[in-house]
Parts: sequence; C-alpha cells; structure tokens
Amino acid sequence: MADLTIAHVRLTPVLICDPPLLNVHGVHQPYTPRLVVEVVTADGVTGLGETYGDTAYLELARPYAELLTGRSVADLNGLLPLARRTGVGHARVEDAVGVGGLRGARTADKLRLSVVSAFEVACLDALGKAYGQPVHALLGGKVRDHVEYSAYLFYRWERHPGGAGEPDDWGAALDPAGIVAQARRFAREHGFRSFKLKGGVFPPERDVAAVRALAEAFPGQPLRLDPNGAWTPRTSLEVAAELASVLEYLEDPAPGTAAMAEVSAGTDVPLATNMCVTAVPEIREAFLTDAVQVVLSDHHYWGGLRATRELAAVCRAFGVGLSMHSNTHMGISLAAMTHVAATVENLGHSCDSHYPWQTEDVITRRHTFNDGRLPVSDAPGLGVELDRDALERLHARWSDEASYGALRDRDDAAAMRAARGHESWRAPALPRW
Amino acid sequence: MADLTIAHVRLTPVLICDPPLLNVHGVHQPYTPRLVVEVVTADGVTGLGETYGDTAYLELARPYAELLTGRSVADLNGLLPLARRTGVGHARVEDAVGVGGLRGARTADKLRLSVVSAFEVACLDALGKAYGQPVHALLGGKVRDHVEYSAYLFYRWERHPGGAGEPDDWGAALDPAGIVAQARRFAREHGFRSFKLKGGVFPPERDVAAVRALAEAFPGQPLRLDPNGAWTPRTSLEVAAELASVLEYLEDPAPGTAAMAEVSAGTDVPLATNMCVTAVPEIREAFLTDAVQVVLSDHHYWGGLRATRELAAVCRAFGVGLSMHSNTHMGISLAAMTHVAATVENLGHSCDSHYPWQTEDVITRRHTFNDGRLPVSDAPGLGVELDRDALERLHARWSDEASYGALRDRDDAAAMRAARGHESWRAPALPRW
Ligand SMILES: [Mg+2]
Ligand SMILES: [Mg+2]
Repeated sequence: MADLTIAHVRLTPVLICDPPLLNVHGVHQPYTPRLVVEVVTADGVTGLGETYGDTAYLELARPYAELLTGRSVADLNGLLPLARRTGVGHARVEDAVGVGGLRGARTADKLRLSVVSAFEVACLDALGKAYGQPVHALLGGKVRDHVEYSAYLFYRWERHPGGAGEPDDWGAALDPAGIVAQARRFAREHGFRSFKLKGGVFPPERDVAAVRALAEAFPGQPLRLDPNGAWTPRTSLEVAAELASVLEYLEDPAPGTAAMAEVSAGTDVPLATNMCVTAVPEIREAFLTDAVQVVLSDHHYWGGLRATRELAAVCRAFGVGLSMHSNTHMGISLAAMTHVAATVENLGHSCDSHYPWQTEDVITRRHTFNDGRLPVSDAPGLGVELDRDALERLHARWSDEASYGALRDRDDAAAMRAARGHESWRAPALPRW
Repeated sequence: MADLTIAHVRLTPVLICDPPLLNVHGVHQPYTPRLVVEVVTADGVTGLGETYGDTAYLELARPYAELLTGRSVADLNGLLPLARRTGVGHARVEDAVGVGGLRGARTADKLRLSVVSAFEVACLDALGKAYGQPVHALLGGKVRDHVEYSAYLFYRWERHPGGAGEPDDWGAALDPAGIVAQARRFAREHGFRSFKLKGGVFPPERDVAAVRALAEAFPGQPLRLDPNGAWTPRTSLEVAAELASVLEYLEDPAPGTAAMAEVSAGTDVPLATNMCVTAVPEIREAFLTDAVQVVLSDHHYWGGLRATRELAAVCRAFGVGLSMHSNTHMGISLAAMTHVAATVENLGHSCDSHYPWQTEDVITRRHTFNDGRLPVSDAPGLGVELDRDALERLHARWSDEASYGALRDRDDAAAMRAARGHESWRAPALPRW
C-alpha cells in the first residue's frame, strides 16, 4: 500500500500579471501574489495547491508546512486544528485578511482557512494520485461531467498607469458599450452563457445602464451585478426594482448582513453574497434573517474542498442557493474549483471565473472553456501538471524585490493612488451611494 | 490500480434476538429484523453494511442492489439519486418507515436514506480495503482515538411473554431500584460513565424518581432521559424543573418540533432529539425556533456516514450540539458509528449504544467497551469481519417463515398486544401524560 506520509512541502510564492480591472476599492495592481504549495509524500507523489500569496499568508504557511511534515496526506480533518497551533499576529489580521477587502470581518481563522485550503487541495491531489482516483471521487464522485462558468465583466482601463505590467488587447471598458463589447468577446472566445458585472465603480445609474445593455445584447441569458457593498439599502432597492426582470441575482448590493437583510425584505430579486457569509460563524445570522438567498462558495475562504461541500450541505438544509466565487487565481485553483463543483448537487448557478483574465499560469496545459464549461477531469488527482519553468519564472519575478517588492501584497487602493498620482486617495467608505 | 466496479451485491436478512425492553410504543419483540449488505468489487473485495431488515426496506434494497451493479464503490454521491429511481409504495411509507415509531413524519425519502446508508457503509468498507485505509481516513481522518458511549437503560421484563425468544440473566427492571441495578452492571461490565434512561413507559413521576436515584448512585455523571415524546409541554417543563440539576439533556420530552420549541422556551435544560430532526427538511424549522439544542445523529436515518458528517456541519454552523442515536443493531453498524464519530470534531456528547443488549452478531469478534469507550480501528475498511456461520444461522431463522414470519417487521405494539393477551391494545396517542 502507498505510504501517504508527507516527506516534505515546497512553498513557492509567485507574482502573476493582472489587468487594470476596477472595483469599488480601487484597481487591480499589475501583478498579484499567489502561493503554490507542493506536498510530497514518502513515495514521491506530489500534490498541488494554490492560495493567496500576500505576506500574511506566507508568514503562516511557512511554519505550518513544517508542522505538516511527517503527517499523512489522508489526515484532512487534522489540517485546521493544526493551523490553529500557528500564531497569527494581530497586525496581520488587521492588515491582510481582507484581500481585496471582500471578506467582511477580519479574523485569524479566516487567514488560517485560506492557507489550509491550499494544503487540503494539495493533499487531495496527492491522495488521488496515490489511489489512482480523481479528486472528485475522493469527494464522493462527480454528479455532472461538465461545470458551467460565467463571464466575469469588469470596468477597466486599457493599460496600467505608466504602462506598467503586461499589456493586453482588451482595451478600455468604462461604459455600457464597452461592457457589452467585452461580454461579446467572452461569449465568442469561451462560449459563456451567463454574465457577471463587477459594479460599484461608477454611480449606480451606469451599472443599471450596463446591465440593461447586456440584457438587450443577450436576451434571456442570466445576468448578475456585484457592486461589492457600494450601495445603501435604499439605493440597492431602487436598483433591484429597475433590474428585477433581468437579474439572475444581485450580489452584495449593500455592506453587511443587517443591510442585506433590509434589502432582502424589500425585493424579490435574489441576493447573493461572498462578503457577508464568508465563514461558518457568519452563516447563522444571515440565514436566520433571510439576508441572502444565494451564497457564493470559495474553497479558499472556507478552508478547502470538503469545507465547501459542508457549506453546500448547510445551504441545502436551509433552502439557500449556491454559486461559486472566484478572484485572481491560476489553473491549480480552477481545477480544484471544478472538481468540487462537479460533486455538489445543489450548485444551482454557474460559477464565477476570473481565469480568462489570467494569462500567466504554472500548469502545463491551460484550462479551456467550451460553451462556457470545463470538463471534469477523471485523471488521478486534480489532473493538472506543474510547469516548473513557468513556476521558476514567476517566482523569479516575486524574488526581484527591487522591482516588484511593493507588489507582494495586493492593495487595490494603493494601485489607485499610484494611478492618480497623489497619496490622498482612499478606498471609499461603504456604502458609497 | 484497484478495479472499484461493483460486481455483485449480496443481501441477507437476519433475525437477531432482542430482550423485552419497554418503551412508550410497547415492548421489543423477541427478534428484530436486520439486513446485512455485502458489496463485492470486480477485484473480489467485499464491503459490509447493515440496516433495518423490515419488509419495506428489503423491498427497496433488492431492486436497488441490481441498479448498483456495474457502478463504482467510489461513486458515493450517486447513491441517493440512484435510490430515487426505485419506487416506494404509498402503503410502505405509511406502514414501515417509522420503525419503532421514532422518526417523525414518514416519507419515502427517509425509507430510501435508511437503505442507502447500508450501501454507503458497504462501499466505504470496500473502498477502504481497496486503498488500504480505515473508513475514518476516507472521512478525512479521526480526530480522536477512542469514541465514548453511554449506557442505555431500559425498563424491562425478565422474559418475553410465554418464555419466547432467548433468555438472559438481567432480570426485570420496573422501578428506580431496578434501573440503578441495571446501570451498576453496565458500569461494571463496560465501564460506561454516562447513562441514558428510556422513559415514557410509566407515569413521569417514576422516570423522575429513577433519574434521581441514578444521580444519587452516580453523582456528577452525565444522565439523560428520553420518554419519546410521551409528555405534554407542561409535563415536560415540570420534569425539566425537577431534574434541571442532574440532566445532561432531556431527549424528546414532547412530540413534534412545535411542542419541543414550547418546552425549550421555558427551560435551560438542553433538549435533544432523534424524533423531530431526523432528515434534512426537518432541520430548518427546528433550528429557527430553537426547538432543540442537541441533535442525535444516526447514520441509518441520515443516509450514511458522509451525510452524518454533513449534519454535523449544519449543527456546527448553528451552534447546535451533536450526540449519536442507536437502536437495535449489530457490530457492523457499531463499527460504522465508531468510525464516523471519530471524525466529527463537534461531537460533544457520548454516543448512545444499544449494542450491549444485542448478544447475537454476524462479525467474528464482538466489539468490547473499555471504560465505556471503543477504540477506533486503523485496519483497512471498517475493521470487522463477517462470520459466515453466524450469518447463515441468523438468516435461517429469518427464513423459517412458519416459526418467525410474524417477526419480519418490528412492531412493538403487536408485541405488547401478544403480551397482554388481547387484541385491543394500541400504542398510546402522544403526548400521553
Ligand atoms: Mg462578489
Ligand atoms: Mg431518542
């Protein structure tokens, strides 16, 4: 039988390029940090995982990796208790947990869960390879052969300020026509059949006009709007009323569970969230007050693929719908998302995917969407292979502190300050409108 | 790699002896039907499972077993959807789902889940053997090395009426002194440190007196009382007030979620249930109304070990405690209970165990409690082995229709009618007092 003992763990932080995508907090920086986790068993089987690469996560991942050595990759229930043995500094909790500012109240456990998630995925990948089984089979088996994703539309600039970062040919999108053009290209190149607009950048009238324009361009296709809590409950209700006939759901219109509950009470448009329900302790209040009708799961937030399935079970028990969140990540995480999504029967909405915006990856064969879907791999483990040259190249960028050191922590507001050329800009207090 | 395809399935109904234990519905019959499930893979690996053996379950298990052949033992998420393809007659739903009358509203899905549970356990046992891993490792790994059980105390007669069934040397227990003597023997022989009394047989005053006597005999040790919904909310509150200082929890004092919520609102004694929360659709109302503070999981009810873990996740999210239910079963199910219990971090109470009352089994080495605990097996699969001679003997009893045919369906009221020698006796309407 296979020796499942973890012989060693490799941690490789990388910086991957990210386009100038806009949100309520600012703008994506030219490069985003990610951490690649490799768990190697005594038999030489390597499992891959991926998570946030900001300093706070690295500081936790390094001692955690040492604790893991000598344990079994099958001991998945032990991963979180083990992480709780590693201290998290108060400053880190304040500074770094809310990457992108999207995860509500900041706690040490949320930081730990995001680190654990990468190790859980890596252990599952290794286990699957040891057993000769795909990761979905370790989660009880796929209930579908393909997973559907939606196009993720952003207001954006043509280039990062000063021409920083890697250029792309998408051009600017700052109005409804630009968003529709972006959507058409996503539909043409990847076959996406549903669309999500990241709003909250401009006054709500522009988001409403953009969603209306999408509805006209793609009649009958599911549309989502996510201003990341930029609006008051009153504004949220006005937008909901205006877009009721075309929205699949409205995502985090107002900040916090109480505000979401207020909106929910006044509209029949389903409300979705990846901001007010992002960890187990936040579930109860949101469900008791009917604040949300759809939770966007994210295995990085929730601590892995099995925790994502547990969230699905809680949602099922309470009749709350389930979708899936995504932000800047590479193909290891997309593979992990696809495996778990394939096993969740009550996943009632197509998953978000930020992946088409990511042109750099550390796997040998990029995932390809067809008809907006990804096939579920039946190869052992995740079914992806590490491209060591790419990993080395992207790690070299991270290691070049002189040139890129300032980008080792994602900070959309800092990028906006740099763009505006003055130090006074701050991400707006929410709600903004 | 192992071929995990299910080559064939063997179903063996058995009748095992059961002592004359009393409850609100009547008395246990001399023999109880159980179904032993064997799932055999193409590689010849056999996985074991066990569930209710009443006719309604057999009628569902037989066509289900045929549907399973050719599928993978790893496809656990497909088990329930597959069961939904098998029809359940309306009469069966009315007659048979509430084995022992303890599972609230009767639905076809509850019947299916109890059948699926045995196949899920059998698949996990086979998978574990194929991978060389214990079942707990397939559930993410044990978080404890021993699982604690409690003594299950019953009012009982010395013998079944007319001397039917297999004799034992426990004698009658019909009053507080008899219950305390029973508890002392359980403590002496198995080391149990917590005690559960099955009440509801006599007026509540006797249950109160029995629990008081237990508290005196075992000061400071956890005590539970379960009258199976025999009482009105008012009576429940009176009992709760009288026993507040000694009860770990009060289990199903009143019938139904609404009545439980009424009791819960009036006492600080935690309320537990295996009657009003027995399936996913029953969770929401009970949790929203704070009707129960502890749910007794039962992998037979919930559809298997993974579903039991999902229930634990729901309880964790809502701050509801978790214990474990047990009724007449053999060592295959006790092994399954122990594996899943070992993996659930938020299992905050010792598990019920009916097992010491069961002197007949189909495994080669009976489980042995030490200090009221069972060790968690690290052998591949469940870690139990089928005793084919015993299986054959107990199946021969089931097959002897002339002598035992009337006992193929558990009916505690029928047994009470037989005992009383008249046809008019009926299980009392609940609440009784
Ligand atoms: Mg969002
Ligand atoms: Mg009970």
